Amino acid sequence: MAVKLEILKESKTTGARTGRVITPHGHFHTPAFMPVGTRGSVKGILPELLSGTGAEICLGNTYHLMLRPGSPLISKMGGLHRFMNWNRPILTDSGGYQAFSMADLNSVDDEGVEFKSIIDGSKVRLTPERATQVQNELGADIIMAFDDCPPSDPNAAGVDDAPAISTTESAQNDSERVDPRLTRAIRRDSKKRKTYDHQERLTIANERTVRWLERCKKAHARAHDQALFGIVQGGTDLRARSWSAEHITNIDLPGYAIGGVAVGERFNEILAVVRHTAPLLPKDKPRYLMGVGYERDLLAAVLCGVDMFDCVLPTRNGRNANAFTPTGQIRLRNAKYAEDHAPIWEGCDCVACAGWADRDGERRPFSRGYLRHLFMAEEMLGPILVTLHNLRHFQRFMSDIRATILTDDWSGFVRRWPVAAEGLRAVEVA
Amino acid sequence: MAVKLEILKESKTTGARTGRVITPHGHFHTPAFMPVGTRGSVKGILPELLSGTGAEICLGNTYHLMLRPGSPLISKMGGLHRFMNWNRPILTDSGGYQAFSMADLNSVDDEGVEFKSIIDGSKVRLTPERATQVQNELGADIIMAFDDCPPSDPNAAGVDDAPAISTTESAQNDSERVDPRLTRAIRRDSKKRKTYDHQERLTIANERTVRWLERCKKAHARAHDQALFGIVQGGTDLRARSWSAEHITNIDLPGYAIGGVAVGERFNEILAVVRHTAPLLPKDKPRYLMGVGYERDLLAAVLCGVDMFDCVLPTRNGRNANAFTPTGQIRLRNAKYAEDHAPIWEGCDCVACAGWADRDGERRPFSRGYLRHLFMAEEMLGPILVTLHNLRHFQRFMSDIRATILTDDWSGFVRRWPVAAEGLRAVEVA
Repeated sequence: MAVKLEILKESKTTGARTGRVITPHGHFHTPAFMPVGTRGSVKGILPELLSGTGAEICLGNTYHLMLRPGSPLISKMGGLHRFMNWNRPILTDSGGYQAFSMADLNSVDDEGVEFKSIIDGSKVRLTPERATQVQNELGADIIMAFDDCPPSDPNAAGVDDAPAISTTESAQNDSERVDPRLTRAIRRDSKKRKTYDHQERLTIANERTVRWLERCKKAHARAHDQALFGIVQGGTDLRARSWSAEHITNIDLPGYAIGGVAVGERFNEILAVVRHTAPLLPKDKPRYLMGVGYERDLLAAVLCGVDMFDCVLPTRNGRNANAFTPTGQIRLRNAKYAEDHAPIWEGCDCVACAGWADRDGERRPFSRGYLRHLFMAEEMLGPILVTLHNLRHFQRFMSDIRATILTDDWSGFVRRWPVAAEGLRAVEVA
Repeated sequence: MAVKLEILKESKTTGARTGRVITPHGHFHTPAFMPVGTRGSVKGILPELLSGTGAEICLGNTYHLMLRPGSPLISKMGGLHRFMNWNRPILTDSGGYQAFSMADLNSVDDEGVEFKSIIDGSKVRLTPERATQVQNELGADIIMAFDDCPPSDPNAAGVDDAPAISTTESAQNDSERVDPRLTRAIRRDSKKRKTYDHQERLTIANERTVRWLERCKKAHARAHDQALFGIVQGGTDLRARSWSAEHITNIDLPGYAIGGVAVGERFNEILAVVRHTAPLLPKDKPRYLMGVGYERDLLAAVLCGVDMFDCVLPTRNGRNANAFTPTGQIRLRNAKYAEDHAPIWEGCDCVACAGWADRDGERRPFSRGYLRHLFMAEEMLGPILVTLHNLRHFQRFMSDIRATILTDDWSGFVRRWPVAAEGLRAVEVA
């Protein structure tokens, strides 16, 4: 097995566990939050500063990297670790999520998907074999199975390609969302001119995902140094999740993920799926909840036994001047911060809040007033500083979760992180 | 005097001298290159990383900061040093250059200039008194006189507000340029419906600049901790330069600048002005050549006795994927770098070329291939890394100049920096 989970401690009162995952590029502590480096870079963040936020593993997006600069080039350049100067663990997704959610899809069938390149409009095919080959060329420590993704909202998660400064704010709360992908998938999965209802489509996807996983495993050429993770699908239908978990975990792999949950469901729906599915995954292997999420979601999922998370929230929201704090997000473009001397959060030790040791050795924070100015003036340093803060916020949050698993003082934890309190309450109540 | 030049060594064979300037926020070594932080930030560069490039003083632009966020706000926030978290020397320009070159000018007369704000279209007046007051509120260690700038090319220098990624490359070489500012200044300096020819306009500007300097000095409210520098004008007319130098230096100030030379002249014209003017400035005070320039220009000016420089070249060109090297600029968007494993410049110790001490303690460079990818994918990290490299390039260049002043081995110097060889040759020949 290319990666190995060492559990150091299990919570006595919840499903949570803490430990570390050993990879060919060092280990990372779990539960872990993985920042997203879509195109071989966590937007605006030098790898040294990324490491300084406490991140021990980061993500790359196969879909984007295969289109530009292409996996053969990255392979020639020594692989993704060397290319982006991050000699630590990396995980790549399979490209499926983006192909389904972002691309101009030409066809979806049992073989795979075909879509138009966003770079030059050329036809691109992704199949389980191709997605695995591309990930073999990129060389991440953990690679993901190519799955037939049930419909989702492309804006919800998974890829961090919003512009550096956007006037459109990301959704701050869960809410029902339109689902253009479903419509498109149904419309396009129709070489045979057949249409499906939502339930039929989910069943097809679920079964296909198992067959595709077998093909990924067979195509996988670097099992010795790259861990292939299978992905459990099934939408919000718990029976479908059970079926998927059983069939996916029947295929022996170094880790498993829960997919298809960061796609616009309400918190309670996510929680129900995670509570149900996490315990169905092998105890001795890493469990990865893809694309999640807010602090509340992370806490709830940890308490259900999840070990790994990724989400674009800290980076995307940081670029849009939304800063995370233990009591909720603040919007730094708000005029009330114009003359605010305070840092984003007193007591945060990030580059923005703690400042830097200047000439006289004193560390002075970057004020909210200055950060607001940077965003109003569209200065790059605004997105950089708030992204660094948000990344550190999520790492401090995970670090405190790992510490709390040792004591099980969860009420103490949510006093420090009131923003996550609902996550604890919901798990306790359920 | 708020600042003081200590000359440590004078060249035996040239006009060059090396030393340091003591300011209320610490000292900087001369000859010094000052990066431009237009809107209270050197674009994309954390202050700690800016300091890491070797920069000991940076610039702020009064014109931009007075329009947004406004000098009263910056004053309330503790001044520009505290606002941008740079507790080291800062120099601000007077705003005149931008008002003349960038703004939609309404009028120019003996009182001052009036122009439309680029933020909200409102009328803004700049006078010697107002420019001084704004700079008093910003609180830089060195502030510049408000001068009537002879015509120039607004693209040549002085303000770093090009977009982060632009398809328009900055001019790489000196060349004759159209001069819209002259046309406009002549057209607009005409409440009295009078028109001037170029020579008349220069004479008016020259005389006005002296009167305005007296008003600046009178209005200056913080002479104890802010050093006001006068600016010698006169275009390429050496008699006008002599006249200006005499009248400007008759006003006792802690330092003097040569203005109006980074405005599109040929190298030989710049050199002729600097050779003529620098020796006319007091020996015991800092001499500052505004808005210059390429390495060749810096070397030539140092050899004529100049101590301080600022230019947007390293930052603006860095954002446009043009990297400086001792043998000339390379354009990282060029396809030939796609699979290039080498750093921008072997032996450069910048963040991009030296990389960072990773998990295993080994420093690996960011390759030209990766940098090219970042620019092709429009990732912020490209501009950040190449800006850091370029800033370090200019600081290494200045550092070597300072060392060479101790030995006067200038032929050795230009063997290390062939890009600057013409600067030495031209001074020797002249």
